[in-house]
Amino acid sequence: MPSAAFTAVPTLKSVKKIQFANTEDKQEFSKFPTKAGRRSLSRSISQSSTDSYSSAASYTDSSDDETSPRDKAQVNTHGSSDFCVKNIKQAEFGRREIEIAEQDMSALISLRKRAQGEKPLAGAKIVGCTHITAQTAVLIETLVALGAQCRWTACNIYSTQNEVAAALAETGVPVFAWKGESEDDFWWCIDRCVNTEGWQANMILDDGGDLTHWVYKKYPSVFKKVRGIVEESVTGVHRLYQLSKAGKLCVPAMNVNDSVTKQKFDNLYCCRESILDGLKRTTDIMFGGKQVVVCGYGEVGKGCCTALKALGAIVCITEIDPICALQACMDGFRVVKLSEVIRQMDVVITCTGNKNVVTREQLDRMKNGCIVCNMGHSNTEIDVASLRSPELTWERVRSQVDHIIWPDGKRVVLLAEGRLLNLSCSTVPTFVLSITATTQALALIELFNAPEGRYKQDVYLLPKKMGKKKQTVTSSHHYKYSDKI
Amino acid sequence: MPSAAFTAVPTLKSVKKIQFANTEDKQEFSKFPTKAGRRSLSRSISQSSTDSYSSAASYTDSSDDETSPRDKAQVNTHGSSDFCVKNIKQAEFGRREIEIAEQDMSALISLRKRAQGEKPLAGAKIVGCTHITAQTAVLIETLVALGAQCRWTACNIYSTQNEVAAALAETGVPVFAWKGESEDDFWWCIDRCVNTEGWQANMILDDGGDLTHWVYKKYPSVFKKVRGIVEESVTGVHRLYQLSKAGKLCVPAMNVNDSVTKQKFDNLYCCRESILDGLKRTTDIMFGGKQVVVCGYGEVGKGCCTALKALGAIVCITEIDPICALQACMDGFRVVKLSEVIRQMDVVITCTGNKNVVTREQLDRMKNGCIVCNMGHSNTEIDVASLRSPELTWERVRSQVDHIIWPDGKRVVLLAEGRLLNLSCSTVPTFVLSITATTQALALIELFNAPEGRYKQDVYLLPKKMGKKKQTVTSSHHYKYSDKI
Amino acid sequence: MPSAAFTAVPTLKSVKKIQFANTEDKQEFSKFPTKAGRRSLSRSISQSSTDSYSSAASYTDSSDDETSPRDKAQVNTHGSSDFCVKNIKQAEFGRREIEIAEQDMSALISLRKRAQGEKPLAGAKIVGCTHITAQTAVLIETLVALGAQCRWTACNIYSTQNEVAAALAETGVPVFAWKGESEDDFWWCIDRCVNTEGWQANMILDDGGDLTHWVYKKYPSVFKKVRGIVEESVTGVHRLYQLSKAGKLCVPAMNVNDSVTKQKFDNLYCCRESILDGLKRTTDIMFGGKQVVVCGYGEVGKGCCTALKALGAIVCITEIDPICALQACMDGFRVVKLSEVIRQMDVVITCTGNKNVVTREQLDRMKNGCIVCNMGHSNTEIDVASLRSPELTWERVRSQVDHIIWPDGKRVVLLAEGRLLNLSCSTVPTFVLSITATTQALALIELFNAPEGRYKQDVYLLPKKMGKKKQTVTSSHHYKYSDKI
Amino acid sequence: MPSAAFTAVPTLKSVKKIQFANTEDKQEFSKFPTKAGRRSLSRSISQSSTDSYSSAASYTDSSDDETSPRDKAQVNTHGSSDFCVKNIKQAEFGRREIEIAEQDMSALISLRKRAQGEKPLAGAKIVGCTHITAQTAVLIETLVALGAQCRWTACNIYSTQNEVAAALAETGVPVFAWKGESEDDFWWCIDRCVNTEGWQANMILDDGGDLTHWVYKKYPSVFKKVRGIVEESVTGVHRLYQLSKAGKLCVPAMNVNDSVTKQKFDNLYCCRESILDGLKRTTDIMFGGKQVVVCGYGEVGKGCCTALKALGAIVCITEIDPICALQACMDGFRVVKLSEVIRQMDVVITCTGNKNVVTREQLDRMKNGCIVCNMGHSNTEIDVASLRSPELTWERVRSQVDHIIWPDGKRVVLLAEGRLLNLSCSTVPTFVLSITATTQALALIELFNAPEGRYKQDVYLLPKKMGKKKQTVTSSHHYKYSDKI
Repeated sequence: MPSAAFTAVPTLKSVKKIQFANTEDKQEFSKFPTKAGRRSLSRSISQSSTDSYSSAASYTDSSDDETSPRDKAQVNTHGSSDFCVKNIKQAEFGRREIEIAEQDMSALISLRKRAQGEKPLAGAKIVGCTHITAQTAVLIETLVALGAQCRWTACNIYSTQNEVAAALAETGVPVFAWKGESEDDFWWCIDRCVNTEGWQANMILDDGGDLTHWVYKKYPSVFKKVRGIVEESVTGVHRLYQLSKAGKLCVPAMNVNDSVTKQKFDNLYCCRESILDGLKRTTDIMFGGKQVVVCGYGEVGKGCCTALKALGAIVCITEIDPICALQACMDGFRVVKLSEVIRQMDVVITCTGNKNVVTREQLDRMKNGCIVCNMGHSNTEIDVASLRSPELTWERVRSQVDHIIWPDGKRVVLLAEGRLLNLSCSTVPTFVLSITATTQALALIELFNAPEGRYKQDVYLLPKKMGKKKQTVTSSHHYKYSDKI
Repeated sequence: MPSAAFTAVPTLKSVKKIQFANTEDKQEFSKFPTKAGRRSLSRSISQSSTDSYSSAASYTDSSDDETSPRDKAQVNTHGSSDFCVKNIKQAEFGRREIEIAEQDMSALISLRKRAQGEKPLAGAKIVGCTHITAQTAVLIETLVALGAQCRWTACNIYSTQNEVAAALAETGVPVFAWKGESEDDFWWCIDRCVNTEGWQANMILDDGGDLTHWVYKKYPSVFKKVRGIVEESVTGVHRLYQLSKAGKLCVPAMNVNDSVTKQKFDNLYCCRESILDGLKRTTDIMFGGKQVVVCGYGEVGKGCCTALKALGAIVCITEIDPICALQACMDGFRVVKLSEVIRQMDVVITCTGNKNVVTREQLDRMKNGCIVCNMGHSNTEIDVASLRSPELTWERVRSQVDHIIWPDGKRVVLLAEGRLLNLSCSTVPTFVLSITATTQALALIELFNAPEGRYKQDVYLLPKKMGKKKQTVTSSHHYKYSDKI
Repeated sequence: MPSAAFTAVPTLKSVKKIQFANTEDKQEFSKFPTKAGRRSLSRSISQSSTDSYSSAASYTDSSDDETSPRDKAQVNTHGSSDFCVKNIKQAEFGRREIEIAEQDMSALISLRKRAQGEKPLAGAKIVGCTHITAQTAVLIETLVALGAQCRWTACNIYSTQNEVAAALAETGVPVFAWKGESEDDFWWCIDRCVNTEGWQANMILDDGGDLTHWVYKKYPSVFKKVRGIVEESVTGVHRLYQLSKAGKLCVPAMNVNDSVTKQKFDNLYCCRESILDGLKRTTDIMFGGKQVVVCGYGEVGKGCCTALKALGAIVCITEIDPICALQACMDGFRVVKLSEVIRQMDVVITCTGNKNVVTREQLDRMKNGCIVCNMGHSNTEIDVASLRSPELTWERVRSQVDHIIWPDGKRVVLLAEGRLLNLSCSTVPTFVLSITATTQALALIELFNAPEGRYKQDVYLLPKKMGKKKQTVTSSHHYKYSDKI
Repeated sequence: MPSAAFTAVPTLKSVKKIQFANTEDKQEFSKFPTKAGRRSLSRSISQSSTDSYSSAASYTDSSDDETSPRDKAQVNTHGSSDFCVKNIKQAEFGRREIEIAEQDMSALISLRKRAQGEKPLAGAKIVGCTHITAQTAVLIETLVALGAQCRWTACNIYSTQNEVAAALAETGVPVFAWKGESEDDFWWCIDRCVNTEGWQANMILDDGGDLTHWVYKKYPSVFKKVRGIVEESVTGVHRLYQLSKAGKLCVPAMNVNDSVTKQKFDNLYCCRESILDGLKRTTDIMFGGKQVVVCGYGEVGKGCCTALKALGAIVCITEIDPICALQACMDGFRVVKLSEVIRQMDVVITCTGNKNVVTREQLDRMKNGCIVCNMGHSNTEIDVASLRSPELTWERVRSQVDHIIWPDGKRVVLLAEGRLLNLSCSTVPTFVLSITATTQALALIELFNAPEGRYKQDVYLLPKKMGKKKQTVTSSHHYKYSDKI
């Protein structure tokens, strides 16, 4: 039984703030729900306890309440029981986490304040499926403040902050989510969000496409009333484009993933910080003087290189695109071939988006103690599979840190088993989540209020000009600084 | 009448890359051709020799030969007289300048070497109208090496390096250009390039659109044989799009101006260096510790800010676009309103592309000794006109440097009279010109060799993939570095 | 009575480099030994397991073995029982930690390899009192490899890594130390190191001066054979200078604390990284765009500013020393008065070494959410005492993170209660510890091998030239990089 | 005749602002005044016209007045003729240059304002021998404002700005200096300063030691009244220490050269800017993407590396001192051996202070177009002598730029013939000169006002604390910034 396996693992640290830890696994899971689901799900569970690097104290995990939330009868202080969370009594702690998050989400709070009077979402009935964290809670409560009714569920079986879910449920938002759901729980929760008496969604906010998928499969008639879908993830957007190509998309959809703000923040600015954070938390490495090769000089690579160079690392680049390679040169990085420098490197970082960027042959040639990690868009940049061979010994030295030991004693330090370092071993700053959440809110406002005919049954990017509201995404941050001095 | 034709067209050509000053005077001249033309022309000429910041010794200027080249009979050592330059005897000096330029134009030389065997321009008859500098000469000689026949003229009456023109003429390229042409000379030279017995152009390389314009007006039949136009400047491209809209473009045209390589280099990388160079050469200012405000955080602004920050200046930004403002914040710059900080600034730099970014009121509030200059795309960012009022005294303290003196003795240091600092007071690195020249060469190759039907009577950007040759633009630089270690 | 002796001496020892928290509690303890000592000790102990930010899994803490090590009979696999550690069975885990540490201590390993043949410490009998960590173990094992016999104890009652102590004991080094010693244990351990049958120390390696103090008080005759003392801490060095002034220093002493390498690394390079690490682990703050004021522009301040600026924070400085202020200006930082900017700041960092740099009045004026922390040399830079008043509410939101809540709801985020952020909330890179450890080893070699008369009964700095061995401190790092390419 | 040789050279540009162009030659000259003087003097003259990169328009050079100033009778508007300058009528232009200089010399102006009331130099009779530039004029006029009487002469035969000398003479300061003095003129001018009826110096301000030397030789009795010597140059300070060692120093002397402010500014901050300026003005090189090796990582090297790295150059270091090498590593630079990388470099910069850092063998291995220059403390870092061999061709392509051509056609670009690039091809910012000038003024004040016995017949550094006045050096700059926002 999955949950037994889950609790059997020594859980030294809490898994609280982690936003996306197993999204990769989740995505795999979502793609092949019928066949491979069970297997990959099990694997995810066995890994999940070690995936967190949260700084927050874990009130939740110390709970020894093993009863499934589905079997509990809970009522909030207003008498409602239209929710399903781990423990409604954690609401107060969750409220505090939400308040802390609000402090670094000024764009969203600013939007809330400006638009509160006009209630641009009055009449909107939004069903949402996202990670349920303090930051998402600020988004949900903003949508409510702008006039919307919301029902919410989790897009990942591990990423829910139970106390935040409790806090939302306490204020009257029907939330169906807890940390450590089973696969069955997962779809049950989605179903409870969509399929409720006397309430029908007219907007969908999705992250990963599972909610959209479920509605398509089970309640296609819902789409008659839905004015649009807002989707954040790469995978979900990909699915929407496939639907669109197949002529099956029956409502307008907004691709938030490719908005300028999200791209710049998720990649350049965010990775600039998370590469340092991820390496430090896992290895305590000193950056100064270290020889680092970064594979790929796109936005992620640029972020990584900027940060490492600034802290005194000696950084070189591999890049096959000539324009990006030229940019690397002009930014002062040596452009090299990986095989030429691999022997000397202290750290190898992949951010190309391609497969097998670091091959077994190159891993064989690395020096003792070399750290290898992945910041790119998949978990196949490093050929980790090739390391799972009998002549090599794996030794887990810390959470997310494996030593791969060669017969001659050489150790290579592999982080997060080649999965995304920034998701596995670092936290995403609230500020970044704020940018994305504000973009999501604006996309919902735009789709909900658009005159008929503006958007057809297609996938759209957020328009550059939306009147003064669009400016809120950034200008509130802008003025945050500009008004100061 | 040539001058009528000239004035009939908006000829505010982009003269982005030349290091010679007075291009704006040329523009003034163009704007008021009937009244002020003659006078401003005279003034320009008298200033031109002192306004140059080229590091090359100017052998030409010391020449006291006042005879017009049109009135001279000159023959090169091969017996040809199909050219018109200032003094064919300067060829040797010009050759040396070309050789020096070749050293930092490895992309172009690399293209020359690679493609020399296959002669991709065999049969091409190119008529060109560009600045005639050592760097352009490398381009022209590359085109010849690739099989083309060329005839060339200048796109600007001041920008010709006479000795380079001589060197080209000596090797057999018919060149019609000298420094300090009259307007009549200008069109005469173009005409001599196009209208020649027994030779008809089948490709046009233009910079500013004057050559194209002339062919349209006088020799429209030439277009029957022309396979395409390659245009570099903003103005020229604008004209082509207008022709295209009006359905009058009768051959394919390639817009080199908006290529990625040109944009990044002309703006970000180039300005990063030229802001330092321009300020240093004019004012000898120490950057460390100086309070600087940069108006506008586009590519030019980013380049300026990066450089100044790196050298210890304390930089803040004004920016109205919220995305750019957010980028400035994330890059560590205070985003301010100009009026809030104007009193404290040591240096004010405009790079917005807008008008009246620095107003008279703000100039009034600047502190004594404040330096004001413009790196943007027009000469109207600083309201210089407002400074030409009786209560203020102008004092020219150095070439390109005016002190504007207020009644109370306060001095504001105005550079280049508000025109582009990087054009007036700095040089453009050969490396940057090499990037553009290579792009031009590739565009010519592409248009000349494209199968019929690939390009219609429209304006195109250079395709991202052109087979291996396209890579040459950047990959030769790329491998320049990557092959080293 | 040991505790009397202990309290008689000012024991505010420097605990610069350990990553375990609560060192300040130890100091508090020392300050109020009679009254609050017992209580604060208890509190510290109860907090210590959660206060750690070491990335290593803590096998020790989960131990529920409450028996005092002094009451246990333990024997290593070689049959020796000349040690006293928590649990000799943890040796294997400790060995792995030591091996991991060795990978980033190339200077020390290089010294070990070079000097192993000549055994420059053959005959040396070293008694040591330092933090007992994986890094120190590498030092101890290097000393043994160079020919020394060692006996070791801990300089801090909390900082011992039990499994590392076990690993050392297992290899035959008599270690007397465990995490969570009582005060009585502390002196008992020291005594067991010094006072052993048939072995008398001829070298002392101390960190804080407690070992030296104990020998002076109890076994002054030992100094007859001792060739020198090597001391690392500020406090210990201070004590030695006092002894020297008083004419009571009876052997040569080497001041390692003030060596160039230690100063640069402990301050500039180390703080450059630990400010980021400490802030990120405690608050998950995004640095980009944050307004930060750093109080003090000495080496620590320089390190902090460099790192924060590089990651996009907008940094200003307060500094009273005019030379340092000028340096800040020339490095591109605004030099301000704290009171002028306090309202706008997102983060306030102290690194002056002075008292009350951040006053209650300034704390009152901070904006909601402002983060305040200390990187300086004492715990009094922020007037934390003034915050312990009835009108303010303290709320511990995470380990090392308190929200101080004003009556109007404003929250100020105080890190580590104003104690050193880098000690409390960050780890010290092994590389830095390696530099110090190598310096200590070289100092021991120098003192042990110096011809008679070279060093008198005084305090010395390590000589700049010691023959080729001195170079090892840095040159092994040097060549680590230079030999690569 | 020297002056004939001088005028025979085509002087395309002015030699106006150059502060130190020929100091090297001058120093050589000073060291062997009797024997080698004539020869090195001649050589200097032939080089001087090309040594300038001044941005100032040259009013002076256009003068065709060949009469020696010594043969002219000139009177200022106050009726005084106690001076000898090129042309007193240039006073107005010189005044403007002085006013421009004042704008960036706030430290000195601030000192002038603060101390004007108390006249700390009342009674001081200062004889000075320095470069006579606008910046020095601000110093001299500050000394006068503080109560001193001054007589002044030039320390270099080429460095005088004639119009500034005229402006000083016009205000009543007896100045004896012009540009292009003969050796005989040089000593005549010094003599006229010292040896005047009814006025005897009691303070000496020297730069290079020639004035001091002359007084020692010719008027030793002057030292009876002299309260002290302030010396700025390395050479002059060296001479003073020699005198001191030999027991021949008969008054206290202040070594301004080794003051903290001067060292930091002349080296780190100044070179950070002048390396860019010097390379750009001579070669127009683009820094981005260039492979650069900097030999030596002292303060000069640090300045060069910081700047080049910031502008996108790919910088590596050679360094033999292990501490400096470690710093280079920690700052993110590869530490290499020159011979390992010499083939790949685009630019080679020496700043070690040693001889033959770049050997003929290495020059042989450089690639075509490699730029070689020297920022160090002597002109022997590059083995230029080895390049003066028959198989190599020298070609002067621009002022300060030689192409050395190998038999196979390879060209190496040698700047300033291996002399100091920052002196030969760049300007020293007024701000830096201001720091030094203020230090000189403070040293004069300190020596003049010191109670008897504080300073003996020895060489001193400026004391760290001088009361509030000492703060002026930097704090006026400090407050310049800190008071602003």
